[in-house]
Amino acid sequence: MDATRVSVVGATGYTGAELLRLIAGHPRLELAAIVGHSTIGQPVAEALPSVTGTLSARIEAFDASAVASRSDAVFCALPHGASAAVVRELRALGTVVLDLSADFRLADPEVHREWYGDHAAPELVSQAVYGLVELHREALRTADLIAVPGCFPTASILALAPLVREGLVAIDSIVIDAKTGVSGAGRAPKLEAHLPEIGEGIRAYKVAGLHRHTPEIEQELGRLAGQSVRVTFTPHLIPITRGVLATAYAVATPSSLGAERCAEAARALYDGSPAVSVLPVGTDPDTLWVRGANRALLSYAVDARTGRVVAQCAIDNLVKGAAGQAVQCLNVRFGFDEAEGLRAPAVWP
Amino acid sequence: MDATRVSVVGATGYTGAELLRLIAGHPRLELAAIVGHSTIGQPVAEALPSVTGTLSARIEAFDASAVASRSDAVFCALPHGASAAVVRELRALGTVVLDLSADFRLADPEVHREWYGDHAAPELVSQAVYGLVELHREALRTADLIAVPGCFPTASILALAPLVREGLVAIDSIVIDAKTGVSGAGRAPKLEAHLPEIGEGIRAYKVAGLHRHTPEIEQELGRLAGQSVRVTFTPHLIPITRGVLATAYAVATPSSLGAERCAEAARALYDGSPAVSVLPVGTDPDTLWVRGANRALLSYAVDARTGRVVAQCAIDNLVKGAAGQAVQCLNVRFGFDEAEGLRAPAVWP
Amino acid sequence: MDATRVSVVGATGYTGAELLRLIAGHPRLELAAIVGHSTIGQPVAEALPSVTGTLSARIEAFDASAVASRSDAVFCALPHGASAAVVRELRALGTVVLDLSADFRLADPEVHREWYGDHAAPELVSQAVYGLVELHREALRTADLIAVPGCFPTASILALAPLVREGLVAIDSIVIDAKTGVSGAGRAPKLEAHLPEIGEGIRAYKVAGLHRHTPEIEQELGRLAGQSVRVTFTPHLIPITRGVLATAYAVATPSSLGAERCAEAARALYDGSPAVSVLPVGTDPDTLWVRGANRALLSYAVDARTGRVVAQCAIDNLVKGAAGQAVQCLNVRFGFDEAEGLRAPAVWP
Amino acid sequence: MDATRVSVVGATGYTGAELLRLIAGHPRLELAAIVGHSTIGQPVAEALPSVTGTLSARIEAFDASAVASRSDAVFCALPHGASAAVVRELRALGTVVLDLSADFRLADPEVHREWYGDHAAPELVSQAVYGLVELHREALRTADLIAVPGCFPTASILALAPLVREGLVAIDSIVIDAKTGVSGAGRAPKLEAHLPEIGEGIRAYKVAGLHRHTPEIEQELGRLAGQSVRVTFTPHLIPITRGVLATAYAVATPSSLGAERCAEAARALYDGSPAVSVLPVGTDPDTLWVRGANRALLSYAVDARTGRVVAQCAIDNLVKGAAGQAVQCLNVRFGFDEAEGLRAPAVWP
Repeated sequence: MDATRVSVVGATGYTGAELLRLIAGHPRLELAAIVGHSTIGQPVAEALPSVTGTLSARIEAFDASAVASRSDAVFCALPHGASAAVVRELRALGTVVLDLSADFRLADPEVHREWYGDHAAPELVSQAVYGLVELHREALRTADLIAVPGCFPTASILALAPLVREGLVAIDSIVIDAKTGVSGAGRAPKLEAHLPEIGEGIRAYKVAGLHRHTPEIEQELGRLAGQSVRVTFTPHLIPITRGVLATAYAVATPSSLGAERCAEAARALYDGSPAVSVLPVGTDPDTLWVRGANRALLSYAVDARTGRVVAQCAIDNLVKGAAGQAVQCLNVRFGFDEAEGLRAPAVWP
Repeated sequence: MDATRVSVVGATGYTGAELLRLIAGHPRLELAAIVGHSTIGQPVAEALPSVTGTLSARIEAFDASAVASRSDAVFCALPHGASAAVVRELRALGTVVLDLSADFRLADPEVHREWYGDHAAPELVSQAVYGLVELHREALRTADLIAVPGCFPTASILALAPLVREGLVAIDSIVIDAKTGVSGAGRAPKLEAHLPEIGEGIRAYKVAGLHRHTPEIEQELGRLAGQSVRVTFTPHLIPITRGVLATAYAVATPSSLGAERCAEAARALYDGSPAVSVLPVGTDPDTLWVRGANRALLSYAVDARTGRVVAQCAIDNLVKGAAGQAVQCLNVRFGFDEAEGLRAPAVWP
Repeated sequence: MDATRVSVVGATGYTGAELLRLIAGHPRLELAAIVGHSTIGQPVAEALPSVTGTLSARIEAFDASAVASRSDAVFCALPHGASAAVVRELRALGTVVLDLSADFRLADPEVHREWYGDHAAPELVSQAVYGLVELHREALRTADLIAVPGCFPTASILALAPLVREGLVAIDSIVIDAKTGVSGAGRAPKLEAHLPEIGEGIRAYKVAGLHRHTPEIEQELGRLAGQSVRVTFTPHLIPITRGVLATAYAVATPSSLGAERCAEAARALYDGSPAVSVLPVGTDPDTLWVRGANRALLSYAVDARTGRVVAQCAIDNLVKGAAGQAVQCLNVRFGFDEAEGLRAPAVWP
Repeated sequence: MDATRVSVVGATGYTGAELLRLIAGHPRLELAAIVGHSTIGQPVAEALPSVTGTLSARIEAFDASAVASRSDAVFCALPHGASAAVVRELRALGTVVLDLSADFRLADPEVHREWYGDHAAPELVSQAVYGLVELHREALRTADLIAVPGCFPTASILALAPLVREGLVAIDSIVIDAKTGVSGAGRAPKLEAHLPEIGEGIRAYKVAGLHRHTPEIEQELGRLAGQSVRVTFTPHLIPITRGVLATAYAVATPSSLGAERCAEAARALYDGSPAVSVLPVGTDPDTLWVRGANRALLSYAVDARTGRVVAQCAIDNLVKGAAGQAVQCLNVRFGFDEAEGLRAPAVWP
C-alpha cells in the first residue's frame, strides 16, 4: 500500500519539530515538503538540531502548488493569523489541511472576531471540524479542513467533558487553573522565557479571562451542555519545557456525587479512545508521565467537605496538545488505526 | 543594648537552615544553641554546607534546661507531632517559643484531632497565638507561645483575608489552587522529590480537601468572616526549590466588583505591614520575585465574564512561609521594628 | 517473519523503562517477560506510570527457565554485582544475554577485581563482547553475552577513539571532564538527587580517578592505542534528568593539528555507523539535541594557543548510554539493520 | 560615622540588581543614584521586581556630575566596551570607580587589543588595580579605579593560584573546564537562554581558547608564576540561574604530590581571606552551597594514577564573581572590615 504523503508548513518551530518526529515514526506516512520561512534552503538539521543524522532534506519556501502536488495532507504549524491565508491556498488546490493555529477553531464568527479580530478566510470556517478526536471522531472521518485544538483546551475539555455531558456539575461553577511548560510560548526568545527570569519561579499570566483559549473551551463544553457555558480560566507558567496540567473545579450535582461516578462518566465517554487513560481514583496524573506521548491522563476527585469535583488532565502540550493530536486526526481522516504511529510510551524519566 | 539570645531546635532541616541565615543577618539577635538530632556533635557546616566559613559552632543535643538558660526565645523547627513535647519543656522553663510546626496552630481541639490526631500538649493550645503578624499583631506583642503558620495558609490567607473581611466574595465559593516548590516537602529523600521523577513534571497531591493546611486557612478566614468557612484547597508540586503561589478563586459580591476595589481592600488591611506588597492591578506576582525575602506579593483580578475574583499571593515558602515569618513574630514580640533583619530584597534572579 | 522475543530483567528502573519504550517501538521485537523485584505481580503501569495505556502485562519474579523458554534474548538491567548470577543462569540455558551492568565489561580479571572486587561469574568473562558497536561490530554479530558499556565510557570512548587510533594526541595527556544528568544515579531516592539539594547546583563527584567507569575507558582506548592508557576522568552532576556530555582534552600531535583533521578521523572511523554524527567544526553538541535518541554527537576543536584538542561527545545516558545501545547490539547480533527501531529524532525541545 | 555614598550605573541588569541587594544589606553604605538606560524615570521596582517594597527610588539617566557629586564611589555594571567612557568621566571628577566590565582588567594594552579591540580610555589602564582582593589586597587599599574580575577568572584563578605560586603544577599543563549558570549571559533574551532550548541540556561554548576571560586568567597566573602562562579554558552552559564551578587540571610537580599539600598551599595563600574557604580533602564543592554568598569554596584532589591535580572552585557568579567581589573591593578601599555586608551564609536550599 502506498504511503500517505504529508508536508509540514512552519516546520522549524517546536510544533513543527514535533510533527517531523512523529511523521518519522509513523509507518503509513511519507514526509514530502518541509516548509519554513527564515531558514529557507538550510538543511533541516541546521534549524532543528534534534534531527541531525536522521533527515537530510532542506527547508523550502512555501509554494502552494509545489506543496499541494506532492502532498495528500498538509500540517500547518503557523502562528495564529498567519495560517488562514496559507490554508486557503492549499484548500483551493484540494489538499487536506490540518491547521494547528487557532484560525479555524471557533465556529462562531462573532466569537472569533471578539478574541482574534477579523478573519482572513471567513468562507472556510464552516468547513472546519474541531480536531478533538474524542468528541468529533465521526465528523473528522470526512473533514478536509481540521482545526487542531490548542493545548489548554485539549486538557480542559477532556477533563470536563464527561462531567458536563452527564450533568454532574453546575455549569456556571467551572474554574480551570492550568499550568504549562514554557515550550507553549514558542521559539522566539522573550524575557518571559529567559531562563534566569523563569527557571526558578512560578507565575500566572492572562489572568481572569484574558487567554484566547477560553472561548474554545466554552464552545466545546457548550456543545455538550446544550447551553452557553462561561468558565474562569487562568494559565500559569511553570519552569519545565513540556507539559500541561489542567486542574478544573466545579460544584458537584448532586452534592453527594462521588469520584468513582465521575471516573465512570469519563470511562464511558472515552471508551474506545486510545489516547485517553482514566486513572484509578486516588492517583493524580503527572505531566512527566506523558512526555513525548500522545496521551491524556485523567483523574477525578471530590471534595466532600465542599461538594466540589476536582478534575485533572495531564498532557504533553506539543503532542496530545498539538502535533500528536494532529496526527491522530489524520489517522482518523485517512482511515488508519487511530493510534497508528502514536503508541509510544512516554519518554520517562 | 544587649542582643536577644535565640536558639534553633531542629536546625538541620531546610527551615532550620533558613532560620540560621536570617539570625546571622539580624542586628538584634545573637545565636545561642543550635540543636539537632542525627548530627549531634558535628560542626554546623558539615550538616549545612551553606554556612561554611560563617559559623563554627557545633550541633547540640536537645536539653531543655541548657537551651532555656541561654535563650530568650527558641525557634522550634521540628516535624508536626514531635514539636509539642519540646515546646512543653521549654515553656515550663519560661522561655518564649516560636513553634514552626502545626502543633499549636489550630485553636479548636476537635479540629486538631480530626486532622492530626491526639495532641501531645493540649493544655498549651489556648496560650498559643497564631503567628500571622498581619492579622494578629497586637496579640503577638505579649505571646509566649507563637504558632507560626504554614506556607500554604500564609499565602492563601493573605490573599483572601481582605476580600473576606470586607464581604467582597461569597464565602462558600472559595477555591484555592496552590503551587509549591519542593523544599516544602522537607530534607528527607523520597521518590516524590527525586529529581528524575519531579524535575520535569507538574502534579497535584492531596487533592480535594486532603491537605492538613486546609483547616488553618478555614480557621483564619472564619475569624474574619464571623462564620464557618469551608474552602476547596489543592496543592501542586512544581520543580523548583522555593516558592509558593496561591491562586484563589471566589464569586464576587456584588458581581460588579472591580479589581481596584479588591486591591484597595488589601491595601487597607495591610497598611503598615512591611512584609506585604499589593501589586498594581494587571501585574501578576512571580515567586522568584520574593526568593529569600520575607515578603508576600498580592495581586487581584476580576473575571468580568464570570463574576469571579482571582486573588494571587506569592511568597518564599521558607521565608514568609516559615523562617522569616517566625523572625517577624519575634520582632513584634520583643518590640523590635517589625522588619528588623528582614528588609533584604529578593535574591533575584 | 517471526518477531524476536525479548525479555527485560530489572524492568522498573530507569534503564528498564527505557528498554520497554524502545522495544515497543521496534518492529522486529516482541516483548516476552517483564521481570522485577519489589513490584512482582503489579501491572507494569503501576511501577512505571509512563507506560499507562500502552502495556497491560504484569511484572514477574525472575525464574530463569520461565524467562529463557520464552525469550530469544534477555536484557539484564540489574545493578553491578547483582547481574552476574542472573546472567550465568540465563547463559546456562542458552539464551543470548545483553547485560547492562558493569559485570562483564572489563576483560582483565585483575582490573575488574581492583575496581569491583571478586567476580560472581568469572568463567563467563572471556565470552563477553564489549557492546560498543562502533568499535566491536564484527565480534558482536556472533556474541551470546554482550557487555553493554556505561554512559560515561560510551561518550568518552566515542570522542577519543578516532584521535587515539590515528595517533593524533599524546596518549598520556588525556583529561576527560564529564557532565551527567541525574537519571544516571538510578531510581532509589538519595540526598544527592533530592531536588532541593541538586536542582540549582553543579558539583563534581568521585574526583581524580575514583569513578569505576575509568577502567572501561582505558581498556578501549588502550586496545586502539596498542599500549596501556591512563586517563584523568572526573564526572559532574548537572540538574537535568537525561544527558551526558564528555569534554575531553589532550595534547595534539603534531602540535599543528587542526580541528578538521580530527573531524576527518572521526568520520573515517564512524563511516557506516548510523548512531554517530560528527558535527561541522565550530558546532558544539548539546545533550538536549539527542534526548530520547540513540545518537552520539561528536565535535572537535583545537586550541591553537596551547596545542590541545578538545573533543566533545553528547549522548542521552539512558539511550545511547544504555538501553538504545543494548538494542543496537541486539540488532547487530540478530542480523537486523543496525538502526532498526532506533531511527527516531530526538525529543526536542 | 557618616555612611559612604555609593551609586550604581547599569542598575537594571543582573549584576546591578545584585549590587542593589548587597548595598541594602551593608551597614556602612548609603545608596545614592541608581542609573539605567532604557528604564529612565521608572520606579526601580518596575525594572527590578525583586526590590518591590524595599526601594522607592526612580531610575536616573547617567549624568557624570550629578552622580559624582552625590557619590563617594560608583559601581559601573555596564557591558564591555560601553564602560570605559563612563569610567573616564567619573574618574575625571575624582570619584572612586569600581568597574565590573572587562575594560580595565588587562594590564597589557596589546593583549587587550587582541581580545577586545581598541580601548576607549587607554590612558586609564595603568591606574586600574585588578580587583581580586585575595591577590591584590594591598594595592586595592589606595586604588581609585578597580577592575573587578569576571566570574570565570575569579573561580579559575582562586583555584590555581596556590598551586602556581608554589610551583606545584607544570605551568604548561593547565586545563580549565568551567561550568556556569545562565545568568552570566545577561538579561537580554536570546535563544541560548530560552528555557525550552537550554532548560534540559548541557553544552560547551567558545571552545578551545575563544572565551575572552582566558587572558585574565593567564595574566594573573603569569604574575604568580613569574613567567608567561597559557591555559586551555572551556566554558559550559548549565541550566541553572546562578553558579560557576571551575574544574582545573594540571600535572603535579613532583608527581608524588598529595591533595593535602595542595590544600595547605591554598590555606596559606588565603589565610586571613574571609571570602575563601578551603574544604577538607574529599569534599567537593557545590555551587548551591554559595548561592547568594560572597564566598569561594576550594577543593583539591590528586589523581595518583595519572599524576594530575584536580582543583575546584565554586562561586556564585553574581556575587563573588561580580557584585559581591566589587563590594569586597570597596570594603578594602574604604578601610572597612573586608567582610562588611558580605557575611551572610548562602541562600540554601
